[in-house]
Amino acid sequence: MSGELEIISRLRRITRNGDGVVIGIGDDAAVIQSDGDKDLIACCDLMVEGVHFRSEWMPPRLLGRKALAVNLSDVAAMGGIPKFAMISIALPSRFGSDFIYELLEGLLELADACGVSIIGGDTSSSPDSLFIDVSVIGECERGQAVTRGGAKSGDQIFVTGSLGASALGLLLLDEGFRLGDSTIENEPMRHQALLKHLSPEPRLNTGSKLAEARLATAMIDISDGLSTDLYHILEESNCGAVIDADKLPIAECVKSIASTVHGIDALQLALHGGEEYELLFTARPENLTRVFEVSTELGIEITAIGEIVDGKGLQLLHDGVSEQIKPEGFEHRI
Amino acid sequence: MSGELEIISRLRRITRNGDGVVIGIGDDAAVIQSDGDKDLIACCDLMVEGVHFRSEWMPPRLLGRKALAVNLSDVAAMGGIPKFAMISIALPSRFGSDFIYELLEGLLELADACGVSIIGGDTSSSPDSLFIDVSVIGECERGQAVTRGGAKSGDQIFVTGSLGASALGLLLLDEGFRLGDSTIENEPMRHQALLKHLSPEPRLNTGSKLAEARLATAMIDISDGLSTDLYHILEESNCGAVIDADKLPIAECVKSIASTVHGIDALQLALHGGEEYELLFTARPENLTRVFEVSTELGIEITAIGEIVDGKGLQLLHDGVSEQIKPEGFEHRI
Repeated sequence: MSGELEIISRLRRITRNGDGVVIGIGDDAAVIQSDGDKDLIACCDLMVEGVHFRSEWMPPRLLGRKALAVNLSDVAAMGGIPKFAMISIALPSRFGSDFIYELLEGLLELADACGVSIIGGDTSSSPDSLFIDVSVIGECERGQAVTRGGAKSGDQIFVTGSLGASALGLLLLDEGFRLGDSTIENEPMRHQALLKHLSPEPRLNTGSKLAEARLATAMIDISDGLSTDLYHILEESNCGAVIDADKLPIAECVKSIASTVHGIDALQLALHGGEEYELLFTARPENLTRVFEVSTELGIEITAIGEIVDGKGLQLLHDGVSEQIKPEGFEHRI
Repeated sequence: MSGELEIISRLRRITRNGDGVVIGIGDDAAVIQSDGDKDLIACCDLMVEGVHFRSEWMPPRLLGRKALAVNLSDVAAMGGIPKFAMISIALPSRFGSDFIYELLEGLLELADACGVSIIGGDTSSSPDSLFIDVSVIGECERGQAVTRGGAKSGDQIFVTGSLGASALGLLLLDEGFRLGDSTIENEPMRHQALLKHLSPEPRLNTGSKLAEARLATAMIDISDGLSTDLYHILEESNCGAVIDADKLPIAECVKSIASTVHGIDALQLALHGGEEYELLFTARPENLTRVFEVSTELGIEITAIGEIVDGKGLQLLHDGVSEQIKPEGFEHRI
């Protein structure tokens, strides 16, 4: 929603962080002290039909899966390990019981795969739209959570995986392509884009490994788009950044069909496309080799895309020219 | 929703309680182990416009307050102390920013009063209805959480506060009475009923005191109505109960106007009316005096209303006759 940042900023101003709050409102997740050796990590993420998804786009199994995945991604971005989840669902009567059971099964499959226990929730009817809110509680070693605020001049900027495919997937959905279509199975590029959008893979191992090895100085997951999410790091860390367009790991499907078939600039998708659920993080330049060792160890692509600098704002180097990038982003909401 | 119990029961069947889950789905809140001396308590509660409330009934400040209060009541029913809360809101465009700020202020007032820190949340636009989902994390001493499953034959049954006023308040709202009406301020009975419905007071001190003193053998908060919520205890504790109609603490406003002015039987409201957010609990008969000492110490009315018995079902003694009561409840949803 247009006023979301305003509401969050107001909430941040009017709430006091009470006892035990290590990191309150304004990061990917909150961090709270437990009375043991760990810190707790907590977050929640809302999916509203007609805002975040359309039910005709999304098999219920993938909807349930994604509702959990986006939260797991937030925990990953703090360097934490998710442990418990609660699910609130308001379901319009036009959805039958099969729909809700498939949704829950999709959610549980991912929960089981990640060692997350579903401990509670709430259900209600809904007059019109389907509404899913998932909250997750995780943990990390005390003091080890990675915020958005720790980047320093000279830090290298990294991103996991590849960029742009989720936004392309959303455009394909809007053009009428569907994951289950028989033709899509023979079109690996479109299939890749749809899957990335509908079934994102939270980077749990990478996030916790980077935190445990104390490699990431700042970290966020890419939900709003690289440019916007990098700006969140820059604002919280009070610094600027230069990124190199030629280094951006643009997804194969984006390189292959975005511009030629769908008339959308691949670089714009990679820079501004949202809902990637890749990790964007910074690390000291002397740790470059160790970061790539994590990449090799986990089998997750990690790419250095630029550098943190003094000052403010985000510069993009492209064809030998430096241009200022604003966090306006590619409009990825339906 | 009609299928809510089915969904919860299915979820209970298909989820496994993983490491650290002390009490999973199916109680007022979940209990999880932390690595310190405390157990953590977690719950979430959804409020959907057109299902749980109508926006024209409810000043936004009270809506925000109630969205948190119903969660605090769940924590109280486990004998815990709430510490942290997250809020997810999906807001239709017809509500202006004043609405959301007042809602948040109402929520924060209660949070501050109860020592609860707001640590995060999510916001979204909504195509039509307003949705609020609040999740709360609390704590209790390890092993001290009070479930629905600990009642034993011979235990006395108690309820805090008085009964029936919230359901009467809902009926009054439906008849067109509003909290802000100038006439209502001169009608203390109607005012009491509306306030009980719109601004319930979670019994936090009572819940945690009863747990700390190890007095409550089973506990639940009355959200669905005394009969239904007592049935939840009976099912989980595998026993029956007899309650005495003459002992039920029927609210003053219900005694005074329910039957004479509004044509509704006061006893039916007290037995089946929902959203009371009073605590219903059981205690060993030898602890009767200690229970009343808690009542005196905290200044909270506590009434003994019956006894747990072997067998199944709920018997009501009324005018010398014993009748079986079903948990069908008074329809309190709008």
